[in-house]
Order: sequence, then C-alpha cells, then structure tokens
Amino acid sequence: MPTSSEPARDLSDPQYREAVIDLLGAMAYGELEAFERLARDAPMAPDFYNRSAMAEMAVAEFGHYKMLRARLEELGADPDVAMTPFVEAIDGFHASTTPNDWLESMVKAYVGDGIATDFYRDVAKYLDPQTRDLVNAVCADFGQSKFVVDAVRYCIAEDPKVAGRLALWGRRLMGEAVAQSQRVAVQREALIDLVLGGLGPDLAAVTRMFADLTEAHTARMKSLGLEA
Amino acid sequence: MPTSSEPARDLSDPQYREAVIDLLGAMAYGELEAFERLARDAPMAPDFYNRSAMAEMAVAEFGHYKMLRARLEELGADPDVAMTPFVEAIDGFHASTTPNDWLESMVKAYVGDGIATDFYRDVAKYLDPQTRDLVNAVCADFGQSKFVVDAVRYCIAEDPKVAGRLALWGRRLMGEAVAQSQRVAVQREALIDLVLGGLGPDLAAVTRMFADLTEAHTARMKSLGLEA
Repeated sequence: MPTSSEPARDLSDPQYREAVIDLLGAMAYGELEAFERLARDAPMAPDFYNRSAMAEMAVAEFGHYKMLRARLEELGADPDVAMTPFVEAIDGFHASTTPNDWLESMVKAYVGDGIATDFYRDVAKYLDPQTRDLVNAVCADFGQSKFVVDAVRYCIAEDPKVAGRLALWGRRLMGEAVAQSQRVAVQREALIDLVLGGLGPDLAAVTRMFADLTEAHTARMKSLGLEA
Repeated sequence: MPTSSEPARDLSDPQYREAVIDLLGAMAYGELEAFERLARDAPMAPDFYNRSAMAEMAVAEFGHYKMLRARLEELGADPDVAMTPFVEAIDGFHASTTPNDWLESMVKAYVGDGIATDFYRDVAKYLDPQTRDLVNAVCADFGQSKFVVDAVRYCIAEDPKVAGRLALWGRRLMGEAVAQSQRVAVQREALIDLVLGGLGPDLAAVTRMFADLTEAHTARMKSLGLEA
C-alpha cells in the first residue's frame, strides 16, 4: 500500500470529523448486516464444522460492530444516526446478492468481505492515527475465512462445473458493490472527499482506486480457483 | 426447586454417561439454532437499540454452544454426533413457530428460551456436580432478555389489541415445545430416564414436571402482560 503524502487529519476539523463519522457509521452498519446475513446463511452448511465456522465469522463481525459503535460514541456521535444514511445501500447490496446455496454464501462471505476490507484499508491511509488503528483492527484478517478457501476449492475439485457459476456470482458481487458505493458517493460529499484523500473530484484518483480494488478482487477470486 | 433424594450420578456408569451426552447434545444444537434464529429475526426490529439487543442475545447463545461442545469433547464424545439426534425436533419446533413480526419474534425469544431453561434446570438436579454447574451456567439469566419484557409491555400499552394475538402465540410456542419434546422422548430412553430422575416411566413424575413447566410458563407470560 503506498504511503500518503497527505498529513494526518485532525478531528477538530469539522469536515474531516463529519467524514470520519460517516465512515465509521457505514462500517458499523455493514458489520451488523454481515453478522445477521452470515448467521442466516449458516444453516445452509453441509455439516456442523462449516456451520459453526460461519457462525464464528458472524460473531467476529458483531465484535467489530461494537468496536465501531464505541468509537462513534467516543467522538460524541450517535451511532444509530451515523449508520442510518447507509442502510439503504447496504440493504440493497444484500437484497440483490442473496445466496441460493451454501457455495454462493461462502463465496459471498469471502469475496464481499474482501472488497469492503480493501476499500476501508485504502481509505485508512488518509485517517488520523487513532481512527486508522481502529479501521485496520476491524479489517485485520483473523484467519477465520480460510475455511472458505479450502471448502470452495474442494467443491470445485469435486465438481468442476460449479466454477463457471461461481465466477459469474463473484462478478455480480463486485458489480453490486460498485453500484451501491456509487449510490452512497453522490450523497455523502465529505466522505467521498476523505475516500479520495482530500484531492477533490479527481478522476484519476477514482480510476486508480477502482483499478486497485479490481486487481485485489481478481487475486481473491483466483485464490478460490475462480476467474474474476 | 425441590432437592432430589437421588445421589449424584457417576459418569463411569455407561447409561448415565449416554444420557448426559444426549442432554448436552440437545442443548448444544438448541443453542446453535437459537443463535441463528435470533440473528435472522434481528432485522425485524423497529430500531437499532432492539436490533443490537437481539444480536447480543444471539451471540450469548453461541457462547453457550461453544461451552457445551467443549464439555462434550472433554467427555470423549463427538459433539456433531451428539447433536444429530435432536436436529429434527429442534428444526421442527422452529419451522412451526416462525415469527411473523418483531413482537412475535421477541415473545418467542423470551418464552421459548424460558421453557427450555426451566426444563434443563429441572433436569440439572439429577446431574453430577460438574455437568450440573455447566447446565446452570448455560441457563443463567444474564439479564439480556429484560429488553423483551420492557418492549412487549410497551407495545401492549400502546395497542392493547396485540395482547390477544400474542397470548395465542405463547400458547402455540408451549404446545409446539411439548409436541417436539414428546417426539424426542420416544426415541431417547437413557435421556428420558435421566430427565425423570431415574424413576423409570413414572407417570406421576411426568405429570409433575409438566405441571411445573406450565406454571413457570404462565408466570412468564404474565410478566409480559399476557394470558397464558
């Protein structure tokens, strides 16, 4: 990850503070939804091992949710108010990517979480140290998704036909994530300014960010044995 | 709760050990299902406060699930095998009591969990000390369901008509719990022997147990402001 030439921001700057509250609010609602969705998908698992592993992932997301809420409260923000602007886009993402079976659910958990994590880590470099540490902690790979990689690769080895379907599924996940992000982008100016490193509506920066996210997505799909 | 005249059992007795593994297996699968169901119902909440509280309850259930699995492993049992005989009955209970809205979901969380807890606490008195401590720890009221009592009472005060519907719902929960327990009872002899305190098929003991469970259920419904 390139180091930023921007100085670390200061929470006493009202526009920066607003953007940080937006960022943490979006992340918090994303984690709450992820918790609920993973728990809801867990019963599709073929055995208790995978079912428990999915539940573990869900519980970890809820832990992140609580960390983000606590930080919002520290900043004097109401976490519920901070999450609200992102409900529609995040619910929209999930409504348009409801998994039809266990394999789709696992690919979604791994790939969807990966896209979000790449994005937040990218933004983290423009943050004040305390907020950056929190974002990086929430995005840390705690190794719990390794079971997904193993399981998906195993299923493809057993039945190579599923690879085509899951490759399409991965593309749909990426497409919906981009679509919903754009929906948020037009509404949250301060946040977008932060995401782009305070460079304003710099088309080159946007293009670069999407190129980075796409590259990481492709690598992640490949680790599952899938074409991006 | 009456104290038992039975001596504490010994895990070196194969029939007792089998019954304990059954009991812990049933409880573990119940907790896993409860986790998934609560997390799935959480998005029906009218606000983030209630949604988070439901998620907290779910996470607590998952903690119990892990404690029960750990104990099964200590006993040299395979937790997955121990849970399997109870999947059909517990899934059947949930399939026949899918909440239609947030209020039904809350009443189910409180009343359903209460019925199970009463039952397990009742059985606990026939257990060896270590198993008994675990069962009591899993059944301990960690105060997280208080939000249900407050919320249901508030909703009834706002709209007294819902009380009739929720009273029927409570009766259905109790009825389905009894029906599914009977389904298990005919299949798990060692467990039933344990549940009845080793008294064998003693009709008076069964009657007494159901009377106690019904009384506790009635008190619980009353605390919600509902007729049982």
